[in-house]
Amino acid sequence: MGPVDEDCSPIVPTDRTRLRRMPERESLDKNMLYEILDAGFICHLAMVVDAWPVVLPTSYGRTGDTLVVHGSVASRSLRGARLDAPICVTVTHTDGVVIARSVFEHSVNYRSVMVFGVPRLLEGDEKLDGLRVLTEHVVPGQWEYARRPTRQEIAQTTVLALALDEVSVKVRTGAPEDGMSLDASLGLWAGDVPIRAGALTPVPDPLLSHGIELPEHLAAYAVGLADRFAPSW
Amino acid sequence: MGPVDEDCSPIVPTDRTRLRRMPERESLDKNMLYEILDAGFICHLAMVVDAWPVVLPTSYGRTGDTLVVHGSVASRSLRGARLDAPICVTVTHTDGVVIARSVFEHSVNYRSVMVFGVPRLLEGDEKLDGLRVLTEHVVPGQWEYARRPTRQEIAQTTVLALALDEVSVKVRTGAPEDGMSLDASLGLWAGDVPIRAGALTPVPDPLLSHGIELPEHLAAYAVGLADRFAPSW
Repeated sequence: MGPVDEDCSPIVPTDRTRLRRMPERESLDKNMLYEILDAGFICHLAMVVDAWPVVLPTSYGRTGDTLVVHGSVASRSLRGARLDAPICVTVTHTDGVVIARSVFEHSVNYRSVMVFGVPRLLEGDEKLDGLRVLTEHVVPGQWEYARRPTRQEIAQTTVLALALDEVSVKVRTGAPEDGMSLDASLGLWAGDVPIRAGALTPVPDPLLSHGIELPEHLAAYAVGLADRFAPSW
Repeated sequence: MGPVDEDCSPIVPTDRTRLRRMPERESLDKNMLYEILDAGFICHLAMVVDAWPVVLPTSYGRTGDTLVVHGSVASRSLRGARLDAPICVTVTHTDGVVIARSVFEHSVNYRSVMVFGVPRLLEGDEKLDGLRVLTEHVVPGQWEYARRPTRQEIAQTTVLALALDEVSVKVRTGAPEDGMSLDASLGLWAGDVPIRAGALTPVPDPLLSHGIELPEHLAAYAVGLADRFAPSW
């Protein structure tokens, strides 16, 4: 995470990221890019393994214009996965279902970021710092609170850094688009059903020793998750 | 969607889907496969375009052992996208954050399905039926209620059918795994923070004609979304 106004220059689309379908959903606003990335912590990481596309969910963090991605599941589950080859990382928040008068105009409200690039496999101090960024992005305060990784644990983890150089940001909000069409006379209900994620009360590990209280930063984290996931508008 | 007990035979892993990392998270239970797919309607569709991996969010439905995927965004946004080539479709529900004593044991509770295959591009009656499956999966009742697609609208839509032949099902639940480790003596809080999605009150289209009430099936839909997204255990 980081300040949202750290870079005011607009996103420059490439041939790959320029939207050809529904360009009105595209955003070139870097603050929107940061906001969408900071609202979540699970991405879908796609790579090519033995000529097949593979897409896996994993956790990520952001520091400035760099995405830090936990690559362990890819590096160890997939025989032949090369993580220093081109990847695509997509982060999506499902904000609602769009109910239209016609089946065709049904849609989904969402915020989505797609990042293309060849990642760097972090090593040494950079890897430790990447783990800090990742940890603090998912659960702020845990890098200070929890036991830090040992050298052996660091070696067992794969951490990727992906520059936010080639990105596509897409946002859809609000009502369906057939409110001014002939279908508006059909007398059917139309609108949207907002979807929001939030957290329930933290559940202590059944093995937790008696008398260990939930620390303040974790209580605040659980309470704040609904605000974190939700769009700012 | 469909009955959950329609096929009791276990999932047969392939070289690609067999988990090498954390095999204890793998499920070979077909009912679990169906349950995870039916709990959501947004998947991440990965393909190879000009030798690069690309992963896009899109909507899907399920009928029996077939996934029906809305492929329009891929077919029209991406120059060079071939949708009759190998794809990978992943559906992920983020169920919670696992707070461990050590940074290394932090994790995420989730349910995830990965499907590999070469899809069929649906045409004619099969395409219309695919659109019905897709619509009814996302918002049950809308195929009857809303105006059905015209021939021209059908032509503008890309619908893929992907057999659930080569799948991987992964589930992580519950507490962190360091409750019996040396770290348990650190006196740190550990457990998990459950994350749940739900729906807010449906928002009428500002252009909705006066006097059109929310129909019962949509009211029930919004109320039921929290149950739909949540794991059954």
